[in-house]
Amino acid sequence: MTTPADPVALAQALIRCESVTPAEGGALTLLEGILSAAGFECHRMTFSEPGFADVENLYARLGNSGPNLCFAGHTDVVPAGDVDAWTSPPFAAEIRDGILYGRGAVDMKGEIACFIAAVHRILARGDKIPGSISLLITGDEEGDSINGTAKLLGWLKERGEILHDCIVGEPSSKDVVGDEIKIGRRGSLNCELIIEGKQGHAAYPHLADNPVPKIARMIDRLSALVLDEGTTHFEPSRLNVTVISVPNTATNVIPGLARARFNVRYNDAHTRPDLEARLRDVCDAAALEVDARYTIKFSGTGDVFLTQTGPLMETAQLAVREVTGAAPRLSTGGGTSDARFIKDHCPVIELGLTNATIHQVDERVPVAELETLTRIYERFVTLYFARS
Amino acid sequence: MTTPADPVALAQALIRCESVTPAEGGALTLLEGILSAAGFECHRMTFSEPGFADVENLYARLGNSGPNLCFAGHTDVVPAGDVDAWTSPPFAAEIRDGILYGRGAVDMKGEIACFIAAVHRILARGDKIPGSISLLITGDEEGDSINGTAKLLGWLKERGEILHDCIVGEPSSKDVVGDEIKIGRRGSLNCELIIEGKQGHAAYPHLADNPVPKIARMIDRLSALVLDEGTTHFEPSRLNVTVISVPNTATNVIPGLARARFNVRYNDAHTRPDLEARLRDVCDAAALEVDARYTIKFSGTGDVFLTQTGPLMETAQLAVREVTGAAPRLSTGGGTSDARFIKDHCPVIELGLTNATIHQVDERVPVAELETLTRIYERFVTLYFARS
Repeated sequence: MTTPADPVALAQALIRCESVTPAEGGALTLLEGILSAAGFECHRMTFSEPGFADVENLYARLGNSGPNLCFAGHTDVVPAGDVDAWTSPPFAAEIRDGILYGRGAVDMKGEIACFIAAVHRILARGDKIPGSISLLITGDEEGDSINGTAKLLGWLKERGEILHDCIVGEPSSKDVVGDEIKIGRRGSLNCELIIEGKQGHAAYPHLADNPVPKIARMIDRLSALVLDEGTTHFEPSRLNVTVISVPNTATNVIPGLARARFNVRYNDAHTRPDLEARLRDVCDAAALEVDARYTIKFSGTGDVFLTQTGPLMETAQLAVREVTGAAPRLSTGGGTSDARFIKDHCPVIELGLTNATIHQVDERVPVAELETLTRIYERFVTLYFARS
Repeated sequence: MTTPADPVALAQALIRCESVTPAEGGALTLLEGILSAAGFECHRMTFSEPGFADVENLYARLGNSGPNLCFAGHTDVVPAGDVDAWTSPPFAAEIRDGILYGRGAVDMKGEIACFIAAVHRILARGDKIPGSISLLITGDEEGDSINGTAKLLGWLKERGEILHDCIVGEPSSKDVVGDEIKIGRRGSLNCELIIEGKQGHAAYPHLADNPVPKIARMIDRLSALVLDEGTTHFEPSRLNVTVISVPNTATNVIPGLARARFNVRYNDAHTRPDLEARLRDVCDAAALEVDARYTIKFSGTGDVFLTQTGPLMETAQLAVREVTGAAPRLSTGGGTSDARFIKDHCPVIELGLTNATIHQVDERVPVAELETLTRIYERFVTLYFARS
């Protein structure tokens, strides 16, 4: 059995659970055992949704009073990919030359191990915790994100259970552990553009209405759009047209419609309604140029958010500086995480290991990095409750 | 049995042969019987090509001396389509209110019937023919056009058999029979454009190279190209981008390449090499604007041709004017036909029935139109040999 205060052994034990999304793989059962033994009240929940896989989740809480400091994470991992390309089996959790190899090492079983180790060290010191520590662990972060954190948060809300602050254990660091804390994320908006035309034979274009040159002009105008120059905490918003298609493969047939899909990663210079309105304006103007009839549909996969300065962020910055000697950068880069759901419930930041090998073959973390992050988390929790 | 001098009965007999491309359906056997009885030397040939259906063909010649006036046509027809939508069965060849209904009525069993009827009327008059009359009939015009006219022409060339002039019985007429003679066709050039990019995640566009906006710009420039304003006998050349695609359906993935296909219908202001060079120039200029690496591939499905004024065209014009009282327009419009192969061997024109219902449900021809075309063909053959 693992020693809960040793993040390396716990990370290894977690990696050996083959919890490829959405499989539980024994990972939540392992955590439940360790946390129950440490006095946490554990709730295992399986969520369902027609058309999606059932997913298991865990909410564990130590203490009854506030503030409730939550660590959020996921035990599911992306598939190993080309297993033969790994230098050791992806779920063997081998340590070679001081480096731990395995799927989930940094995204994000390593961080879960560090946080649990940190809590055990605090409890081992006999410190009283003037509040609660909770862990919100899902098995559906790398998959559909339908039966995971979003539903866990709904369940908490129904119970009247409040999270006061949340730290997400995503691998936020770039070169050395603690060099970056994520304090927000760009929003992500997916758009589908459909141009109606009239099908016909390429030999008789006057009898048809070719939507392809029209959509080309609209894509050209959308791609040239400068949404902003960036904001204090965010890089410039970007629009990328990623998919184009027509329901036709014959060169001599003018298709009856053309489709494009594009994704916008937008910063806090925009709200989603304003952004949609701006995109419609650009499309209207381009459509007018080429006499196009178009429809556009929007679907968001996460609105932009920025965590304001406050106890959570200040405590995390201080903990990193005390342990590593360097102040962390505050970042809003990268893709989405479950923080997009949590930000509607309480302040949330992301702080974890270095992310160079996430989702790759030979995902790995130096053992020393696990120890450093454990000390950061330990200091962070201690400082957090010292302030409250 | 049909009376060969009656185009209506012969057209009905041909329609009743279900020769949906590439099936022979008894149509060539019927023609061989009638032509052999009239003194034609008949050759039935089945051509094969790996990957394509075997197709039967017929070459029939009356006479040994020159000039050899050839009538070219096809007995294969396109499928009936929605049989229930026809007002009478598509292969029943019913006549109602003076109109003959059936698949192939105008494209182009009707014309074959008219030509054979015309020849029988000439022979019945006891006229001597100072030359030869031949029929080149394929079963592969509506299909792949691989095992038909092109191979028949090769077979003739090998035998040293010369065609001096050729009339193709495609339905060339628009409103009334004889109102248009086709004297050429636009060329058709297919092009495939591929833009190389670099795949990546839409959240990190700086690590990727999105080919979609680049191909959009290139399509925009190609679509705006004015190739010419038309020539004496041809409408303006037209370029149509008909296919766009990326190997990707996920909105958050920037694809690694983008493809477009386009078709150019070009007139005699261009040769194919000049046209290809011009398109490359446009692509080069557009690629420079957006820093695109592209490749382009060309494949032709028929070069432009125009039949020069001469005995063939003049005789056809005269015959139409004598029978209908109106001079035919000389046209180069419409799609491709087997004339694209024949034009490399001898002067060729197309003269046939009205084309309003080709390939449609309830394909049909007024019986009176068959009689008019028979008289035009009869006069045409008579005048042709009178001149020679």
